[in-house]
Amino acid sequence: MSTQDEETWDDDENTIKFLVASDVHLGYAEKDAKRGHDSLVAFEEVLQIAKKEEVDFLLLGGDLFHENKPSRKILHGCMCLLRQYCMGDRPCQLEFLSDQSVNFGHSKFPFVNYEDPNLNVSLPVFSIHGNHDDPAGSGNLCALDILSAAGLVNHFGQHPSLDQIEMTPMLLQKGRTKLALYGLGSVRDERLHRMFVRKSVTMLRPRENQDEWVNILTFHQNRVKHGEKNYIPEQFLDSFLDLVVWGHEHDARGLERNDVQDFIVLQPGSTVATSLAEGETLPKKAFLVRVKPSRKMKFEAIPLQTVRQFYLKDIVLADTTLDPNDPDAADKIAAFCQEKVEELLCRAEEEHTGNKRQPKEPLIRLKIEYSGGFPMFNTNRFGQMFTDRVANPREIIHFYRKKVYEKKSGTKEKWE
Amino acid sequence: MSTQDEETWDDDENTIKFLVASDVHLGYAEKDAKRGHDSLVAFEEVLQIAKKEEVDFLLLGGDLFHENKPSRKILHGCMCLLRQYCMGDRPCQLEFLSDQSVNFGHSKFPFVNYEDPNLNVSLPVFSIHGNHDDPAGSGNLCALDILSAAGLVNHFGQHPSLDQIEMTPMLLQKGRTKLALYGLGSVRDERLHRMFVRKSVTMLRPRENQDEWVNILTFHQNRVKHGEKNYIPEQFLDSFLDLVVWGHEHDARGLERNDVQDFIVLQPGSTVATSLAEGETLPKKAFLVRVKPSRKMKFEAIPLQTVRQFYLKDIVLADTTLDPNDPDAADKIAAFCQEKVEELLCRAEEEHTGNKRQPKEPLIRLKIEYSGGFPMFNTNRFGQMFTDRVANPREIIHFYRKKVYEKKSGTKEKWE
Ligand SMILES: [Mn+2]
Ligand SMILES: [Mn+2]
Ligand SMILES: [Mn+2]
Ligand SMILES: [Mn+2]
Repeated sequence: MSTQDEETWDDDENTIKFLVASDVHLGYAEKDAKRGHDSLVAFEEVLQIAKKEEVDFLLLGGDLFHENKPSRKILHGCMCLLRQYCMGDRPCQLEFLSDQSVNFGHSKFPFVNYEDPNLNVSLPVFSIHGNHDDPAGSGNLCALDILSAAGLVNHFGQHPSLDQIEMTPMLLQKGRTKLALYGLGSVRDERLHRMFVRKSVTMLRPRENQDEWVNILTFHQNRVKHGEKNYIPEQFLDSFLDLVVWGHEHDARGLERNDVQDFIVLQPGSTVATSLAEGETLPKKAFLVRVKPSRKMKFEAIPLQTVRQFYLKDIVLADTTLDPNDPDAADKIAAFCQEKVEELLCRAEEEHTGNKRQPKEPLIRLKIEYSGGFPMFNTNRFGQMFTDRVANPREIIHFYRKKVYEKKSGTKEKWE
Repeated sequence: MSTQDEETWDDDENTIKFLVASDVHLGYAEKDAKRGHDSLVAFEEVLQIAKKEEVDFLLLGGDLFHENKPSRKILHGCMCLLRQYCMGDRPCQLEFLSDQSVNFGHSKFPFVNYEDPNLNVSLPVFSIHGNHDDPAGSGNLCALDILSAAGLVNHFGQHPSLDQIEMTPMLLQKGRTKLALYGLGSVRDERLHRMFVRKSVTMLRPRENQDEWVNILTFHQNRVKHGEKNYIPEQFLDSFLDLVVWGHEHDARGLERNDVQDFIVLQPGSTVATSLAEGETLPKKAFLVRVKPSRKMKFEAIPLQTVRQFYLKDIVLADTTLDPNDPDAADKIAAFCQEKVEELLCRAEEEHTGNKRQPKEPLIRLKIEYSGGFPMFNTNRFGQMFTDRVANPREIIHFYRKKVYEKKSGTKEKWE
C-alpha cells in the first residue's frame, strides 16, 4: 500500500479513482448576508474537482446538509449543482457486482443511479447520512433520500435495526481493481459503542477471493474521545479494512495510519467552518484516492480554493506588556487586539488563493485569556470597525478565563 | 371545434393528445391514519392514465401540493411517482418551437425536460403553481421548482412582476397540429382582477399564421364570484383563446362553453376532496384532450377509480316526521341520522368501483338543518358507531340553522 511504481498509476483502465469530501453542511449560516452561500460554493468546487479529475465516483462522509430539513433554497441549490455536474455522457466504468437491492434496500429505486437506463449519470455520488441529516419522521427518510429519489445521489449505509448492524459492502470493480465499499450512516455514539462492545456490528465480506478486495468503510462518528463511551475507538473497527473514511470530525486531519489495526484513516474534515474553533482553521480539502489491482492506494490532498479563509489567534493578556491597572487598560487592550486583527487581515490578503469565488472577508477569531485583573472591552463596538473586512465582525473577540478546579483524580485545568 | 370525423382522431402523428388534472393537493390530511395516502393514490392513477393513454403530455392546473412546504414524505412520494411514470424510452414527439429560455426563464435549467440529453423523459408534465404551492421565501421558489430542478416537471407560467403580466406561450407542434400553451400561476384574485381592469395582462401571440394555433390558457383563480373583485370573470380573458383549463375550483364541473367569449372552459376539479362541501362530491376526473390540425378538439372525461367516495346529504328536520317536543327527540334524531348514514354506506358499497386501491370507507356528511326547536345530539358519540366504516367518523354530522337577516338591498337568507 505504498506509493511506488509511479508510472503505472496512469493505467486508467485498472485504476479506480475517487474523490472524498465530507461534512459539506449545505445551508450552514444560510441567512447570513455574507456567509450564506459559502457552503454551496465549496460543494460546487468539490464537484468541479471531481469532474475535472474524471473520477469514477465522489464519496461523501455525511452531513451533506446542515439542517435535517434543509430549506427549499438549499435543497434546490444542491439539486441544481448535482444535476449540473453529475449528469453527462461520460460512461461510468464501475461494474457493480453486489446485490443492489441489498445495498440500497431502503430506497424506492434500489439500484445505483448510473445503471438507470433513463438517466445519463457521468459522476456517481455515494453518500452516507450524518447526524445533521439523519433519517427522521414519517417514513424514516432523510434529505439524501430526496436526492436519491431524483436519481442524483446513491444513499448507502442506512441500516434499519437499532440493535444489530450487518454491513453489506457495495462491490465495485473496474478492470482488475476491486473495491468493497462499506458504509454506516451516523448512529448515536453511545449506542454504537455499546453495539460494538456486544459484538453486534458485523461486516460481511465477499465469499471468494477475499484478498483481492480493497476494503473501505465510510463512517460518521466521534473519533475524538468525549467521555468513555461517547466515541468509537479505531480498534473497534475490523482490521481487514484498508481505509476508513471518517466523517463528522471537522478538522481536516487528512491521512493517518493506524499501525495496530493496519489501516489508514482518512479524515477529510468539513468543507465549511461551522464553528470558530481551532480545528476548523486547518485548510479545507478534498482527497483524491487511486486504487490499483495490487491493492495499492495513492492519496492526493486537494486544497479547496474557494473556501472562506479563517484565522484564529490565541492571546494571553498576562503574557503581554499590557498593564491591567492602567486607567486606560480597556482601550489599550482593544487597540492591541485591533492591531492583531489587522495583522491577520494582512495575512489573509497575502494568502488569498486568487480564486474569484474565494471571499475577500475572512473569518477572524481572537481568543483572549484575560485572567489577572484585565478588563474586557465592548466587543460589538470593536466588531463595527471591521464590518466590511471581516465575515464575522460581531464574533471576532472571545474572552475567557482559565479556571482551576479540583477533580477526584487530582488538579486539572479546564477552560471556561 | 365539434367532434365529427371520428375516424380521423386516430391519426396519431397529427393529433396532440394530453391529459388534464388539477388540484391534486398532495399531502392533504397526510397525518390522518385512514386518509393519509389518498392524495398520492389519486395522483398515481392520473399518471397511470397518462401512461396508458400514451399522451403527449400531462397538464396540471396548480395546487399539486397541499402545503407550501410539503413534508419530506410527500415530496419524496411525489418524486418517486414522477420518476416511475414519467421516465422511459418512449420519445416525446412534441416539437418545442418557442424560446424556452423565455418560457422557463425563472428556472436554473431553462429548457423543457424532454430535451435534456441526460434524461429519458417519456411523459412530460407541465404545471403552473397554485395558491397552495406558490413561490415564497428566499429565492422565490415553490415546491414545483424542486421537481423542476430534478427534471421531473416543467414548471411554467411563473411571472416575476407584480404590476404587469405578459404571457408568452409555449409553442408546441406535432405533425401539423400547433398548440400555444399559456399559463398563469396563481395570483391573488383582487390583484389580478385590478391588473385585468388596468389592461396590464397581455397574452403574446405567434407572429405568423396566428390562425393555425390552438390557444390554451392554464389558470388558477377564483371562477366563482366571492365579492366584486375576488374572482376573475371569464370575459376578462382574451377571446382568441380556444380553451381555458381552470384550476383552483375543486368542483369537477368539466366542460362548459362560454358563447360570448367563444372558448371552452375545462374545470377539472380536484382529485381529492379537501373539504366536506357539496362541490367535492362530484365524481373526480381527469380529462383527455385531443387536438387536430383543423384546430378541432375532442374531450373525454375519465372518472378516477381510486378516489375515496364522498356522499353528502342535506336534511331539514322540520321537513321530517320528527317531533321537536318529543322527550326522546335527541335520540330519535340520532337514530334517524344513523339510518341515513347506513343508506349512504349501502350506496357506497354498491357504487364502489371495485378497484383495489379505492378505499372501502367513504366520506359521509349529513348537513342537518335543525331550526324549529330541534335538539342536537352528541356528534362524537354518533361518530363512534362508524369508526370502522366511515373515513371521517368525527365529522359526519354538521348541524346548522337557517339565519335570516336584513341587508340594505332587502331580505336575504344566509347559512350559518
Ligand atoms: Mn456530524
Ligand atoms: Mn458535520
Ligand atoms: Mn386547490
Ligand atoms: Mn387553489
